[in-house]
Amino acid sequence: MSKLTDVPKRILIGHALRSDRLGETLLPKRIALPVFASDPLSSVAYAPGEVLLVLSIAGVSAYHFSPWIAVAVAVLMLTVVASYRQIVHAYPSGGGDYEVAGTNLGPRAGLTVASALLVDYVMTVAVSISAGIENLGSAIPFVVEHKVLCAIAVIVLLTLMNLRGVRESGTLFAIPTYVFVTGVFLMIGWGAFRGLVLGDTMRAPTADLDIKPEQQGLAGFALVFLLLRAFSSGCAALTGVEAISNGVPAFRKPKAKNAATTLALMGLLAVTMFCGIITLAMTTKVHMAEHPAADLLRNGVPVGPGYVQDPVISQVAEAVFGHGSILFVVLAAATALVLFLAANTAYNGFPVLGSILAQDRFMPRQLHTRGDRLAFSNGIVLLAGAAALLIFVYGANSTRLIQLYIVGVFVSFTTSQIGMVRHWNRHLAAERDAATRRHMIRSRAINAFGAFLTALVLVVVLVTKFTHGAWVAVLGMCLFYVMMTAIRRHYDRVAEELAAPEGPSDDTARPSRVHSVVLISKIHRPTLRALAYAKLMRSDTLEALTVNVDQAETRKLYEEWERRGIDVPLKVLDSPYREVTRPVIEYVKSLRKESPRDIVSVIIPEYVVGHWYEHLLHNQSALRLKGRLLFTPGVMVTSVPYQLASSEAAKQRARRYQEWNAPGSVRRGPAQERAKEERESPAGKD
Amino acid sequence: MSKLTDVPKRILIGHALRSDRLGETLLPKRIALPVFASDPLSSVAYAPGEVLLVLSIAGVSAYHFSPWIAVAVAVLMLTVVASYRQIVHAYPSGGGDYEVAGTNLGPRAGLTVASALLVDYVMTVAVSISAGIENLGSAIPFVVEHKVLCAIAVIVLLTLMNLRGVRESGTLFAIPTYVFVTGVFLMIGWGAFRGLVLGDTMRAPTADLDIKPEQQGLAGFALVFLLLRAFSSGCAALTGVEAISNGVPAFRKPKAKNAATTLALMGLLAVTMFCGIITLAMTTKVHMAEHPAADLLRNGVPVGPGYVQDPVISQVAEAVFGHGSILFVVLAAATALVLFLAANTAYNGFPVLGSILAQDRFMPRQLHTRGDRLAFSNGIVLLAGAAALLIFVYGANSTRLIQLYIVGVFVSFTTSQIGMVRHWNRHLAAERDAATRRHMIRSRAINAFGAFLTALVLVVVLVTKFTHGAWVAVLGMCLFYVMMTAIRRHYDRVAEELAAPEGPSDDTARPSRVHSVVLISKIHRPTLRALAYAKLMRSDTLEALTVNVDQAETRKLYEEWERRGIDVPLKVLDSPYREVTRPVIEYVKSLRKESPRDIVSVIIPEYVVGHWYEHLLHNQSALRLKGRLLFTPGVMVTSVPYQLASSEAAKQRARRYQEWNAPGSVRRGPAQERAKEERESPAGKD
Repeated sequence: MSKLTDVPKRILIGHALRSDRLGETLLPKRIALPVFASDPLSSVAYAPGEVLLVLSIAGVSAYHFSPWIAVAVAVLMLTVVASYRQIVHAYPSGGGDYEVAGTNLGPRAGLTVASALLVDYVMTVAVSISAGIENLGSAIPFVVEHKVLCAIAVIVLLTLMNLRGVRESGTLFAIPTYVFVTGVFLMIGWGAFRGLVLGDTMRAPTADLDIKPEQQGLAGFALVFLLLRAFSSGCAALTGVEAISNGVPAFRKPKAKNAATTLALMGLLAVTMFCGIITLAMTTKVHMAEHPAADLLRNGVPVGPGYVQDPVISQVAEAVFGHGSILFVVLAAATALVLFLAANTAYNGFPVLGSILAQDRFMPRQLHTRGDRLAFSNGIVLLAGAAALLIFVYGANSTRLIQLYIVGVFVSFTTSQIGMVRHWNRHLAAERDAATRRHMIRSRAINAFGAFLTALVLVVVLVTKFTHGAWVAVLGMCLFYVMMTAIRRHYDRVAEELAAPEGPSDDTARPSRVHSVVLISKIHRPTLRALAYAKLMRSDTLEALTVNVDQAETRKLYEEWERRGIDVPLKVLDSPYREVTRPVIEYVKSLRKESPRDIVSVIIPEYVVGHWYEHLLHNQSALRLKGRLLFTPGVMVTSVPYQLASSEAAKQRARRYQEWNAPGSVRRGPAQERAKEERESPAGKD
Repeated sequence: MSKLTDVPKRILIGHALRSDRLGETLLPKRIALPVFASDPLSSVAYAPGEVLLVLSIAGVSAYHFSPWIAVAVAVLMLTVVASYRQIVHAYPSGGGDYEVAGTNLGPRAGLTVASALLVDYVMTVAVSISAGIENLGSAIPFVVEHKVLCAIAVIVLLTLMNLRGVRESGTLFAIPTYVFVTGVFLMIGWGAFRGLVLGDTMRAPTADLDIKPEQQGLAGFALVFLLLRAFSSGCAALTGVEAISNGVPAFRKPKAKNAATTLALMGLLAVTMFCGIITLAMTTKVHMAEHPAADLLRNGVPVGPGYVQDPVISQVAEAVFGHGSILFVVLAAATALVLFLAANTAYNGFPVLGSILAQDRFMPRQLHTRGDRLAFSNGIVLLAGAAALLIFVYGANSTRLIQLYIVGVFVSFTTSQIGMVRHWNRHLAAERDAATRRHMIRSRAINAFGAFLTALVLVVVLVTKFTHGAWVAVLGMCLFYVMMTAIRRHYDRVAEELAAPEGPSDDTARPSRVHSVVLISKIHRPTLRALAYAKLMRSDTLEALTVNVDQAETRKLYEEWERRGIDVPLKVLDSPYREVTRPVIEYVKSLRKESPRDIVSVIIPEYVVGHWYEHLLHNQSALRLKGRLLFTPGVMVTSVPYQLASSEAAKQRARRYQEWNAPGSVRRGPAQERAKEERESPAGKD
């Protein structure tokens, strides 16, 4: 229980929830929806605009294709949602696409999905923050004038928040997400009312501008290609749909059912919002150009580089609610906030995926341990650095960044759907119950259709966007893939080298005797303690060892040794060059040479200090010596610590550090629950 | 002996000389002069210009004071040289000013001198490189157009050279220094011949330019103040004179006498060159202005910011040898090179001073060990960083940097001369022999006069330059002083805390029993080895300990344990949150609580790997656990290393690392010799 005196600190730092207490917090659907769906829901803030941007290449006349594209995106979205509902039921352990692909299609497929997801996390941060900045900019001009700067400031802020260990709380996510969803529905409703009932003419700020088509009179294959490109841009709305399938353990029971319901709800909301915004954009005559400075014309003259083209959602809001109205500003702020929250989900998703990959030895093992601040921090910094680099290189331009985005998502969609088809095939082969079989066949059909459709989209995306930037994402995936394969190979090689032979071997042949050596620099409490401990260990021989760096000091040491009557022989090593490490190493080696079957136990008194700068002042030669001794075979190195008064501070720090919760805890669900699920799920037995 | 196969590598890296072989290289006077005197000799490249710059404030008419200022600087130089000849005889151990001040005036004075010298090293790098760039620029215009960039490039180059461990070789120093000295004397001689014998009129490039005086008709106190300022700028010629007093151990025998002779030679060379250059500058009508863009007039019009004012030495060379002549270019190159070598001396001086300060516990102890690459590297990087910052802030303008330079040197001069007066007073009190007394009284008179004169100059420098930038140097000195005092206080406090009480105490009370715990993650060679070693230690109890992070793995481990019939009990700790550190720490604490007089020996199997990235993949939880265990009282932590095949590479690296020689070795002289000197010198007994 928290003490009263801790209150101010707890308010500031928020260490109140220990991980074992956290375990009891399971998410109801109304909180799970915003926690997991801020990414896919926020996508509707930029996806409609991307469709119009691509169509504008063929001029405003091509805009009449946009409803068809919206329908295609909606169909795809509903298909993907239906497919993931199957995954949620079949793999409720939270492993998501990686688990599905790895279990059913082998580790290579799993690794491909993992690489795609890692790239996807980076892109989620870059795209969401850029889009958020653009939306915020429609209300606050300063922001859009310093886009890159502001975007990087948001990254820094999110990074610090996550490094500091601010856990996402359900409520924190819920408020802006619900404000955003309500705002968009209010806009759609009010827009429909004004248009259909009142008969108002609503005009977007760009309604009066013309678009100079980059390619005149497109037809035939070229037009189809353009429509496909517009469609694949619209698919940006699907990013993040897989999040719920990774978060099943965090749901209240019945977990799988609740998660599936939330998925369906999310899909319906996203589709409605996407189509509503496209329709309103058509009605209010929003005109978007890929290169607004040159291609947007006011009375036949390009608007020039000073012109800022606001996102579709904010143009529509302006048309429906009126420029500068309260509702317009609230919606712009909620949009930006929900986009930043979407970026934050990547900060939480990364360690979860990293931990699962580490379990399979594709990532450094320490990522496996939950709540390991150090390892987690490295991941956060890597993620933030990569996203900041992309934002810098692409000038925080969400349109250009989206070209890189969708590849990863669809690689992961397609692979996991194919995996699910395999999954059902395998289960059908064993299943005899007719009802269950019918159910499985239906599920297989859904996943097969999902696999077909997402594979098609993946091909479309690759073909239409490869040269526009998708190659960067593909390159990133390859890098992750190669790195993880190399790590796994390293671990396998080491495991082979370390494997214990059956029965006795030369390597572990019983050594015969232990020769203990206590290193002494001068006589003080730490060395006396080390001597006392060493005596207690009852090794076969025991001696104290000092290096003669300074003749006078050594003589003093020797005299004090005699005077105190210490009953351990003191051996003095000469060191004309004032070195400490080399003479000790050479002495240890000579001992081993004399009697190769003996082992040498080197006992080093060590001070424990409290501050990093004190480390610079102490133990440096002890540390170096230890480092070198580790390379010497047949040696064991023992530290006898002596805690200085100042070490108390560091001890407290270490304890606080341990009680720290890794972000992402909420969405993984409590550890005990998860461990149980893993054992119970059929996937665990596969 | 070097193997033939090593030859290409040795040529590249230059590891040929081991420090014990280096010992035999003692410097003859003709090599010692360039090694130690590149700093003071190179000062004549910028000091004359600084005098003219300051005088130009009162207009060209004030230039007729410059011979008087040259005479004053010459007198001061000879006085300082005479004083240092006394120091060289009295303190031949190479401790220099720091030792003199510390021994005779107490540690505070010593620390003041040390702070001054540390600032001085930084300034030497900044000023010498800036001046070198300006001289190089008179031959290569590109260099002077990108001054800051080129200066920082030279710093980076010197830093890399020194980090890599390129030792200065006598010859490397000798060539450019002798070329420079010969060139300057040739210039003076040829100039005198042309002027006096041939009657040529030699005109510097700025001879036709007028100077707009910043202050018209200065007289009385203002004029005196200006002359004093000009004089204190000219004192820049004295920087580095103390170098020889730090290098006595590197001289051939009789060391002190040879060093004193070299000092005298260096003083005469510097004075002649300084006066010669000033005279030639007068003859060839060199006109220098502090702000050339505004104050240099061509036909009454300012020359504007595009004009580059070359240094005096290069203007004189141009007038004497002719623009673009071979000799002019060679002299410019030699001047730049000797200035860069002067900067390099600071890179060598820093670790030498650092090692002496560390011996007195004013600096981290590891600096004490000679050839410690890590500690030395930190010093190099600190020095380079500070110098690069100064160069960046002051735009690589040597004139502005020199304002900061001279304070430190004169603090050190004055303090050590006062120390020498005390030294002679003390020795006179004990000395009875009349001849020796006469000799000592003469020496005391020289040092007293030196102290008086340098103190006067220090006051002049502080008064005339404080607002011009000297405050930065004073601030730097204060920072170093405070830092070193704090380090010393820390070491003293710790020493007090650690002091061993006489007789038995609670603290070192004999513990009664040892409880050994071997940490097991899985059964492989490292753990089997650790178990074998642990058994050999014959502690009172021995058990194996594993943390149950994954139920299935733990069960497998337990089964294998049974199957192999390992005769050590295996204890399993539960860890519902997949932590490793906390359960172990808590178990160790509980053992200690049960029997507080026992100690716990924790034995950790460790892999030894060869590459830094492998460290990321292994031992992380072992390292963290070790870190935490050190805070737990009554524990000893033992590493049992298992060398992986890849560790061989790291072992080789560590060995190479150890054979690395710290730069500055040549100027410190061989270690054995030095140790002997220290024991023999009268200062050692003081």
